[in-house]
Amino acid sequence: MSSTCIDTLSAEGRREFYNSFDTVLTDCDGVLWLLNNTLPGATEVMNGFKADNKKVFFVTNNSTKSHVQFLEKFHSLGFQASANEVVSTSFLAAKYVKANLDPAKRVYVIGSPAIACELDALNVKHFGVGEDYLKTSVPTFVENIKLEPDVGAVLVGFDEHFSYPKLFRAASYLKDPSVLFVATNTDESFPVAGTNLIMPGTGSLVCAVKTCAGRDPFVVGKPSSYICNVLMESNKIDPSRTIMIGDRCNTDILLGKRCGFKTLLVLTGVNTQKNIEEWSKSDDPKLQELVPDFYAQGINSLKATFPVPL
Amino acid sequence: MSSTCIDTLSAEGRREFYNSFDTVLTDCDGVLWLLNNTLPGATEVMNGFKADNKKVFFVTNNSTKSHVQFLEKFHSLGFQASANEVVSTSFLAAKYVKANLDPAKRVYVIGSPAIACELDALNVKHFGVGEDYLKTSVPTFVENIKLEPDVGAVLVGFDEHFSYPKLFRAASYLKDPSVLFVATNTDESFPVAGTNLIMPGTGSLVCAVKTCAGRDPFVVGKPSSYICNVLMESNKIDPSRTIMIGDRCNTDILLGKRCGFKTLLVLTGVNTQKNIEEWSKSDDPKLQELVPDFYAQGINSLKATFPVPL
Repeated sequence: MSSTCIDTLSAEGRREFYNSFDTVLTDCDGVLWLLNNTLPGATEVMNGFKADNKKVFFVTNNSTKSHVQFLEKFHSLGFQASANEVVSTSFLAAKYVKANLDPAKRVYVIGSPAIACELDALNVKHFGVGEDYLKTSVPTFVENIKLEPDVGAVLVGFDEHFSYPKLFRAASYLKDPSVLFVATNTDESFPVAGTNLIMPGTGSLVCAVKTCAGRDPFVVGKPSSYICNVLMESNKIDPSRTIMIGDRCNTDILLGKRCGFKTLLVLTGVNTQKNIEEWSKSDDPKLQELVPDFYAQGINSLKATFPVPL
Repeated sequence: MSSTCIDTLSAEGRREFYNSFDTVLTDCDGVLWLLNNTLPGATEVMNGFKADNKKVFFVTNNSTKSHVQFLEKFHSLGFQASANEVVSTSFLAAKYVKANLDPAKRVYVIGSPAIACELDALNVKHFGVGEDYLKTSVPTFVENIKLEPDVGAVLVGFDEHFSYPKLFRAASYLKDPSVLFVATNTDESFPVAGTNLIMPGTGSLVCAVKTCAGRDPFVVGKPSSYICNVLMESNKIDPSRTIMIGDRCNTDILLGKRCGFKTLLVLTGVNTQKNIEEWSKSDDPKLQELVPDFYAQGINSLKATFPVPL
């Protein structure tokens, strides 16, 4: 299978593309912004879709902000967004835990204050957020560690204070097979634009916990279709009239494929045109599945598909 | 394939077993000791082998002690052991890095002071050992991080101070494909005897680095046959007359199988009789490969195989 470049479509092709969907799901980091810098055209295009009465949902695997904090970020950067249009994994994970956890039990969290905030909002008891570094030697730590008796779930998201003691506690709680194991997302890493830096993602923390716990988590973020079931439950979405826009094929594009959406990769983030060219030629169905229907240099390319210039 | 229990062998079977090898390779944690407590019979059996002129090598994936520190531990617990009989992964990893690294380059180490000590002994320049916790926010960290210019290898071993900044640095250095990626071992976790605790092993740290770096390391420890090549180079070992004793099938037993040794699992550590019964019945060749030739309740069981009672 091959991928169609939006930037080189004919006028007819651009019209056809634009009219082929009435719901837009978009990733945020790498599509709409990099850190706090909006990418060119992002606000015009997304606000333009809404002005044209297309449904818009912002779907992010980022677990470092609460639902409310994301909404604030959208507004401060000039995006029109309402609460039910923002789907983030701190919110989704809390929702999943609330629905599946015995209310008498608590959650051990490896994650950010945003996750704590979302759990609080749903009255789910939790602990673990914040620093937990080794103050003594490992043998002394092992001798003195006390596991909490009422833990019913371990939830792993992005945690800048990830540490050996946290890993130890998570693995030990997860020894009990009745304890739920939930992860916000499994994004491996992010390039830091304009540098040689690689920023480890939640996926690398989740892998560490998986390895020592010997168990796989339930993942709420993309490409898990849980995120879509949540959307479909509460909003009328016709998959055949929906497009998923993203910068990472193994989350955004794969989610779109699994849910029967059209898929569009923008080249302002993780994956490159070279990636999709290689995967297109591959015989491996798992790599073929990562090839988007469309690709574009950036979200800005979509401007030219609007029937009335933005 | 099935596994023979040493504890129920006939007198003839015990004699045949004992005479079938003249070199003994043994794992340490979970076979000879648990933390600092010698397991029953361990010293008598190992010293007994030496008294009977069998060659003995202590082969451990543990990277938290230097060669010299291991030797001290053996002596303090009553094991007869000389320097060339002890093979540990901090030592092996330093040896591998020394042989493969441009001498003008340095090693970024996620690991223990023991690894630093072994690298120092071989005059390999390194940095990274010790605490490296996040003091600011991730964005501030990312803005201010400076990568060292002369890094030629990233070495990952057991590190009680494992942290997000360490993961970040490792992934960033490994972005350059010419930078070597070496791991001491990939043991996932260890049960803590008599508790519900699970102690994460180096394998879980290595998995975190692998995931964000998008690369696989060269592993020097068991089951990598590198450890055996090192032994075979410097010592005359006949694989068909060698037995490997261990408590973990995916390292000790697998190494033995790969090298053509006989294999013996002791049930005082990681794997259980139930594990080998399940794997014996499996159709999966990867699980079949984990089934040891022999198993025993503990190293103590070997006492009964000696021709003259110990």
